[in-house]
Amino acid sequence: MDDIQVLVPNDDNDADDEDEETTSNPDFINTALIQGNEEIITEVENPSLLSSLRSRLNKKLTVNAGSLNVLSTKYESLDYDTCENYLLLDEERKKGYKFIVRKITAKWTIFLFIGMITALIACLIDISIDTLCQLKYGFLSDYVDNYVIRGQLYVPYLYWIGFNIIPVFIGSVLVAYWEPVAAGSGIPQVKCYLNGVKIPRVVRIKTLIAKAVGVVCSVVGGLAGGKEGPMIHVGAAVAAGISQGKSTTFKSDLHIFRYFREDQEKRDFVSGGAAAGVSAAFGAPVGGVLFSLEEGASFWNQSLTWRIFFASVVSTFTLNFVLSMYYGEFGNLLFPGLFNLGHFEEFSYSLYELPVFALFGAFGGLLGALWNSINYKLAVFRIRYLQKPWLKVMEACLVATMTATAGFLMIYLLNDCKPLGQDPTKFPTQVYCGDGQYNVLASIWFQTPEASVRSLFHDPPNTHNVASLFYFVIVYFFLSCWTFGLSTSNGLFIPSLLTGAAWGRLLSVGLFYIYPNKALIHPGKYALIGAAAQLGGLVRMTISLTVIIMETTDNISFGLPLIVTLMAAKWTGDYFNDGIYDIHIQLSGVPFLSWDPPPLSHNIYASEVMSHPIASLKNVENVGYIAQLLKDTSYNGFPVVDPPILNNDEVTIYGKLRGLILRSQLIVLLQNKIFNETSDSWSNINANIFRDEYPRYPTVDKLDLSEMEKTYSVDLRPYMNPSPYTVLHSASLPRMFRLFRALGLRHLPIVNDRNEVIGMVTRKDLARYRVWRHRGQMGVEELLVSKEI
Amino acid sequence: MDDIQVLVPNDDNDADDEDEETTSNPDFINTALIQGNEEIITEVENPSLLSSLRSRLNKKLTVNAGSLNVLSTKYESLDYDTCENYLLLDEERKKGYKFIVRKITAKWTIFLFIGMITALIACLIDISIDTLCQLKYGFLSDYVDNYVIRGQLYVPYLYWIGFNIIPVFIGSVLVAYWEPVAAGSGIPQVKCYLNGVKIPRVVRIKTLIAKAVGVVCSVVGGLAGGKEGPMIHVGAAVAAGISQGKSTTFKSDLHIFRYFREDQEKRDFVSGGAAAGVSAAFGAPVGGVLFSLEEGASFWNQSLTWRIFFASVVSTFTLNFVLSMYYGEFGNLLFPGLFNLGHFEEFSYSLYELPVFALFGAFGGLLGALWNSINYKLAVFRIRYLQKPWLKVMEACLVATMTATAGFLMIYLLNDCKPLGQDPTKFPTQVYCGDGQYNVLASIWFQTPEASVRSLFHDPPNTHNVASLFYFVIVYFFLSCWTFGLSTSNGLFIPSLLTGAAWGRLLSVGLFYIYPNKALIHPGKYALIGAAAQLGGLVRMTISLTVIIMETTDNISFGLPLIVTLMAAKWTGDYFNDGIYDIHIQLSGVPFLSWDPPPLSHNIYASEVMSHPIASLKNVENVGYIAQLLKDTSYNGFPVVDPPILNNDEVTIYGKLRGLILRSQLIVLLQNKIFNETSDSWSNINANIFRDEYPRYPTVDKLDLSEMEKTYSVDLRPYMNPSPYTVLHSASLPRMFRLFRALGLRHLPIVNDRNEVIGMVTRKDLARYRVWRHRGQMGVEELLVSKEI
Repeated sequence: MDDIQVLVPNDDNDADDEDEETTSNPDFINTALIQGNEEIITEVENPSLLSSLRSRLNKKLTVNAGSLNVLSTKYESLDYDTCENYLLLDEERKKGYKFIVRKITAKWTIFLFIGMITALIACLIDISIDTLCQLKYGFLSDYVDNYVIRGQLYVPYLYWIGFNIIPVFIGSVLVAYWEPVAAGSGIPQVKCYLNGVKIPRVVRIKTLIAKAVGVVCSVVGGLAGGKEGPMIHVGAAVAAGISQGKSTTFKSDLHIFRYFREDQEKRDFVSGGAAAGVSAAFGAPVGGVLFSLEEGASFWNQSLTWRIFFASVVSTFTLNFVLSMYYGEFGNLLFPGLFNLGHFEEFSYSLYELPVFALFGAFGGLLGALWNSINYKLAVFRIRYLQKPWLKVMEACLVATMTATAGFLMIYLLNDCKPLGQDPTKFPTQVYCGDGQYNVLASIWFQTPEASVRSLFHDPPNTHNVASLFYFVIVYFFLSCWTFGLSTSNGLFIPSLLTGAAWGRLLSVGLFYIYPNKALIHPGKYALIGAAAQLGGLVRMTISLTVIIMETTDNISFGLPLIVTLMAAKWTGDYFNDGIYDIHIQLSGVPFLSWDPPPLSHNIYASEVMSHPIASLKNVENVGYIAQLLKDTSYNGFPVVDPPILNNDEVTIYGKLRGLILRSQLIVLLQNKIFNETSDSWSNINANIFRDEYPRYPTVDKLDLSEMEKTYSVDLRPYMNPSPYTVLHSASLPRMFRLFRALGLRHLPIVNDRNEVIGMVTRKDLARYRVWRHRGQMGVEELLVSKEI
Repeated sequence: MDDIQVLVPNDDNDADDEDEETTSNPDFINTALIQGNEEIITEVENPSLLSSLRSRLNKKLTVNAGSLNVLSTKYESLDYDTCENYLLLDEERKKGYKFIVRKITAKWTIFLFIGMITALIACLIDISIDTLCQLKYGFLSDYVDNYVIRGQLYVPYLYWIGFNIIPVFIGSVLVAYWEPVAAGSGIPQVKCYLNGVKIPRVVRIKTLIAKAVGVVCSVVGGLAGGKEGPMIHVGAAVAAGISQGKSTTFKSDLHIFRYFREDQEKRDFVSGGAAAGVSAAFGAPVGGVLFSLEEGASFWNQSLTWRIFFASVVSTFTLNFVLSMYYGEFGNLLFPGLFNLGHFEEFSYSLYELPVFALFGAFGGLLGALWNSINYKLAVFRIRYLQKPWLKVMEACLVATMTATAGFLMIYLLNDCKPLGQDPTKFPTQVYCGDGQYNVLASIWFQTPEASVRSLFHDPPNTHNVASLFYFVIVYFFLSCWTFGLSTSNGLFIPSLLTGAAWGRLLSVGLFYIYPNKALIHPGKYALIGAAAQLGGLVRMTISLTVIIMETTDNISFGLPLIVTLMAAKWTGDYFNDGIYDIHIQLSGVPFLSWDPPPLSHNIYASEVMSHPIASLKNVENVGYIAQLLKDTSYNGFPVVDPPILNNDEVTIYGKLRGLILRSQLIVLLQNKIFNETSDSWSNINANIFRDEYPRYPTVDKLDLSEMEKTYSVDLRPYMNPSPYTVLHSASLPRMFRLFRALGLRHLPIVNDRNEVIGMVTRKDLARYRVWRHRGQMGVEELLVSKEI
């Protein structure tokens, strides 16, 4: 079996988390099969149902690793629908409005801490990287110049390899063996989480530690990766940690903030954490909010957004304050983000440059599509052949070696010398240059990629020679592509910006010769446009990327050029393939719900989409039956129904829907031996018994029920959700999709017109229908659903 | 009867637009009354239902004008739910994916034009105001100096009054007699529209013209009002006009963009228009997007937001381009918005200033709450006593006179002189000052309020004398309060900013004496904080206001001070009353849905909230019956049901729900004589017959049906929405609220557990339950619903 290591490398104990698609033991299904029901059978005349039946058969086929059109059954959904059971009503009645005010205060406090702690971690990462890189590159620069004289250039080369491999080795061992979900930038994982998919362990403290240490290792190791993407993941994990008042990693429960222990509340905090992460990374509080909304929120809520914005502003302020203090500029607040492009005030543009920006964007889109396509092939290769942790570590070390080699060869072969003085680098390295000169390429390689991007934006014209830029673009393009997806913790923002800035600067040289108004051709401006185009071509983000770049450049008037560039990049790239994050999400088979239902799908009905038959429970149900049902099926939600009735002239084979109960609720009930209760004793049970177990409920195998207990019965009515949203079997796919997406549902029972449950629609049933756009064509495809991915 | 003129001054021909609350003719109700139904009767034991019944009785009471807790029955909802009928499916099948691509292209084009045309109108308004004000104030300045020498200062005073009254008279006649919905800033109206309430005539071309001309008149007339708020309304109207390809005002139909003729599509464009308006007004494209989202969108959609952002960026670019050209700075792009606070780069702040900002915010919140409370009392006075158009015109002229008088008295009495040279004004007026000096107050009064705000922000310290600022704050505070709500077209952003900037600058003088680090006390910085605090105290906007101010000051690093100030202002203000827009919305009884359902309302059930009995139709219905039903009821949506059946042992008195059909659809069917059709002839009918009439369908009285035709029957099935969202009668209020709000519904049929319709919930039924927060207390109130408001 092939394993997708892109999102969830080890899926231990996820085996019984499979969702509704698995066939369940027919003994425990107390509803009839489809064939007996005249409600549905009329629909079979519909040809599209037949095609759907055919596609269900296809699911039995084996799935090739690396396929983009298969959904995995192993991901669970988060549930954003409030369970309005008796316990909630009881709690509401007891707590009153004072509790609401306290809850609001708690929320603001938590968001404050999310902002502050995210920023402090960012500072720690930044200071560590800065210190270690100074040591490393200072040492290397000295060594190169010493050994050049002796003609023993292989010595610093070996040192360089060593300095790259050691941190990369540490970082990749951490990721490959200790916490595989900390690999990469973490943005796809956070995106999936905010979309409503539970990615195991994605916001745990262990992941946070692996991520933070890992990112220092890989940046110090000189990999073509940045620390900005991981900051978003760090922020998300911080938020989840603080808001829950408990930690599974440390096995401690502070018993505070228990009322935030539900998916909906946690998601809100995680949105804030992601925004605070962006804000700390780029000094872009508004961009952070927009990122969080663009990637996550489906339902815009004014007060939530205001709180997210607060966390973002606190984050950038804290970072600024601490870093300014550290760099000896106390109170000057010069460091709004980890990555700061510097102030671009001097630039202006004219109307007739807009087509040029669009061309740059289109070029970036082309390059981005190529990058994505290579990276996709690489990811498939990794899935097939590089599954073992030690192989992953080896690959990371190989990339670290290749990075040093590429840098060394460029410095050695391209003797690009510039006079000292207008020196933009900390460690001017002479190599083979004459006295009073320094090697430009060495200065690019002997600093962090962030500093290189800044140089390319702000260096005066003619600092860089055309050949150096050209080879640099090619080398860095492939290096960054090879690096993304390694078992190390690093992002792709900075390497993409660097590649783009380099080719933007390169193309500006060409423009200088053909363009009428030479005053406007500032290479730094075109480096910025190139950087935006390249990054836009890779990730295909829209409004948030524009605003992030506007904020990092501290230039609002550059909005139109950026929007034109990013639009052209997105449209060009989308012609060939999806954004890189989406490719990785698809590779891992996550049932991701897009913003809108697929177009022209009003002729697909609930009866074709739903899973059936379903396993349902009675209002008062036998404990042994429940335990067996939980063991034998992998469903996560069970309709609670009246028993089917037998009338004189009407035979119902399905029961009327009375409520919906979750697997996790049933397990908590059985675990706490809450059965044979009368309505008098309900008042002793409160919602906290469910919250104490959140979010990792015990599995059914952990239940210890005696044979006596199995004969008891449990009244499910006080715990179930008594009025779940339902739709008729004749509802169309877009109708279900909008309901599901807008309200963040996990289960949508499908009823017939006697209000009897005949099927269930979950996230996977809807995510299966996906729009594809390719080379100007458009359509809807039906994905396969498989356990094998 | 008292009439609310704040939102909809004349409600001609709205008489039969009343919604479900009106009692309908019992002859045409084919469902039984509540008493007969055992489904519901069990609920009556519930004490909260009894209290709800009691409150329904209260509705018969007469409502006092100016009450804030009454909803009017006269507003209709917009419908954002797609009607998935046969015609839609048929159209989808015929058009295919090429049509989807064409539709997307059309959308981008429309958003481009929305941005451009909004900006061009803004330029036109700006240039007109600029030209006329230069003439006016140049003339006045000369006259004052001439007549001071002769000792006949009453002459320029009379001229001043004249110059104020003439434009204000024109503007207020236009608004009071020609198009009353153009009064005020238009923001509350746009806010209601985006929330899903149909405000009659709010986005018509006639309104656009009245607004544009009116705003020029009132600003030239010297009223304490700005042109920025109206720009948002202008943008919204432009968007509605362009996207529909037809104009009711001009009675022309271009027959383009017909597929955008539905509430949902139109709302999307109007969001874009509002954003483009903000963007043009403040040069704040990101702020515009956030404004549009904060005030309108309930469901965040990535691609829509991206288009809105595009329109905003195009708008600020076009404005910048045209104004730069007009002011002779071609290509320099110095005018990103109508209102530009200038660049604030020089400011920095320290951590220990944050509490000071919070205090400023709290003070602004106090002043804002006072302002709102006075303006509310004034609005009630206007509703009671100033209903006649001529009285409204008189009041506007009185305010114009008072404005001139106040200015004149201040110039005359406070002889605040400064030496020329550091002169920040165009028309230095000497009055009683010595030679080489000018009167500071005359320079404030003899320019537009925008220019005065800029002076207060950027004038060097000690330009303004404490007494002048003090009197100016008092005078302008009351003048702006009196002006808002007049029958003229102007906004409150600029006067609030001006008041706030003046007291901010005033307080900074005090701070200068008590504060340790005097270098930080730049009066301009505190003027900015004061301006933000005052505006925030009035309108209580959050993220969008912060971003708008960040963008107009072109300073991203000032985010934290602004957020602290605005948060303090909002919290302080909310302690006393609501934001001014909300007060005006409540005054007019608009059923506005807030972001979240009221807290602790899970014990209110659908069966108490719904309207019943309901009027329903059969699948194939008699034409005469439909016509009569439309005449006798004022419902806008009718459930289509199976006839009730009589079984051996089960008597159903309600019919099973088969679909939902709208009044407008029925009228179009009857008007086009679409009856007695067989399924063969359906293919001749397409969805365009409904679109051609959108959005102003004929009334039922316009139908001309012969007696013969009344005996025909019409098959409603191809036109009705066959699977409307429904909930059970046991669903809670929050559950219905979330469904309704997230999906933008207009009608929510309530069914029993046999799927029979027993009631209907509309916007008013949900908006009736409102949270109140007052002086730290919190609760839920049930509003009255009345026809009399």
